[in-house]
Amino acid sequence: MAGKVFFSVTMSLDGFIAPESSEELMGRQWVELQRWVFPQRFFRENLKLGGGGEQGRDNDILRETHLRTGASVMGKRMFDAGEQAWPEDAPFHTPVFVVTHEQRDPWERPGGTTFHFVNDGIESALDRARGAAGDRDVRIAGGGATILEYLNAGLIDEFTIALSPVLFGSGIRLFEGVDAGRVALEPVRAEPTQRVTHLTYAVRER
Amino acid sequence: MAGKVFFSVTMSLDGFIAPESSEELMGRQWVELQRWVFPQRFFRENLKLGGGGEQGRDNDILRETHLRTGASVMGKRMFDAGEQAWPEDAPFHTPVFVVTHEQRDPWERPGGTTFHFVNDGIESALDRARGAAGDRDVRIAGGGATILEYLNAGLIDEFTIALSPVLFGSGIRLFEGVDAGRVALEPVRAEPTQRVTHLTYAVRER
Repeated sequence: MAGKVFFSVTMSLDGFIAPESSEELMGRQWVELQRWVFPQRFFRENLKLGGGGEQGRDNDILRETHLRTGASVMGKRMFDAGEQAWPEDAPFHTPVFVVTHEQRDPWERPGGTTFHFVNDGIESALDRARGAAGDRDVRIAGGGATILEYLNAGLIDEFTIALSPVLFGSGIRLFEGVDAGRVALEPVRAEPTQRVTHLTYAVRER
Repeated sequence: MAGKVFFSVTMSLDGFIAPESSEELMGRQWVELQRWVFPQRFFRENLKLGGGGEQGRDNDILRETHLRTGASVMGKRMFDAGEQAWPEDAPFHTPVFVVTHEQRDPWERPGGTTFHFVNDGIESALDRARGAAGDRDVRIAGGGATILEYLNAGLIDEFTIALSPVLFGSGIRLFEGVDAGRVALEPVRAEPTQRVTHLTYAVRER
């Protein structure tokens, strides 16, 4: 049985998922936005930051999100930023399909991550990811513009937002340009932790 | 002891609290946004829409919000829209201070609501509301621009958002223009119901 297509991001209360420019990516606001992630044991293990870390519900949710994912899809901008930032042993450990105009051979990393570069659009990338994921789910990893393309195309089954107690005021909005006439939401689950509120919605077409 | 200054609004997942124009105010999106409110017993009683209605947590939260409020403050646009829409027995049942340039005598309604028109700014309106509220809280009722003025001025102690499972795509954003360099948030409580997620934050200055 095919899995679901989902995304999972951390969003500020005013709807932002990243600062305007990637130079600010490690700035104060971004650190505040992502603060719930850094102390988690799974995050530390997966990025090889050393042992220890929290093991509560936030950690379980990070781990569950990772384990359900059989393949990921990402846009070129996320890949370009990550290519600089990820450790050699990239943190996906599954096939990753990069939607890009760049023609490039698959790039295999230690630890099970292989990046495949797909030149014929988002549906093709998703088809290939579905094939690679087997009965696990496909995660649309980001960035925001890529997530929105999939959402507006009716290709997302559900998504989870870690709603972070921070206001950005400016930056990149997750839902900027959403086709609100097409995308309806159905609440699936809301789970507050001490740090954030994890909100899951199913996507329905109107 | 003086009460708190708070606001309480329903917001779409993408951060909107109202459509762009007030003609759309009873449009489909707005009805979806506010859908959790209409069936509640307290809402029906307070607007004299007839008996019956739900009596779960959503209803309790509406009632608690009303009961904690000793006085309200609102902007001129909210008052102008409400002057047309509210029943004669306006739904506040307390003093309401309207921030406006219009000079006008207090307007007393049956049922305990009296509108006072304040011409010397938001701090003055708040001072008068505090005086009228006694040991109960002051609600900054709206609209969005007025809420944001108070928030950016550091005059809000806490707020509650009923986060509704709907995407607007456009309209009036609650936090548009927020002074994110000044306003920090601290999560107080997150309470999901079947219809919305009630999120309460305390406001801290950075």
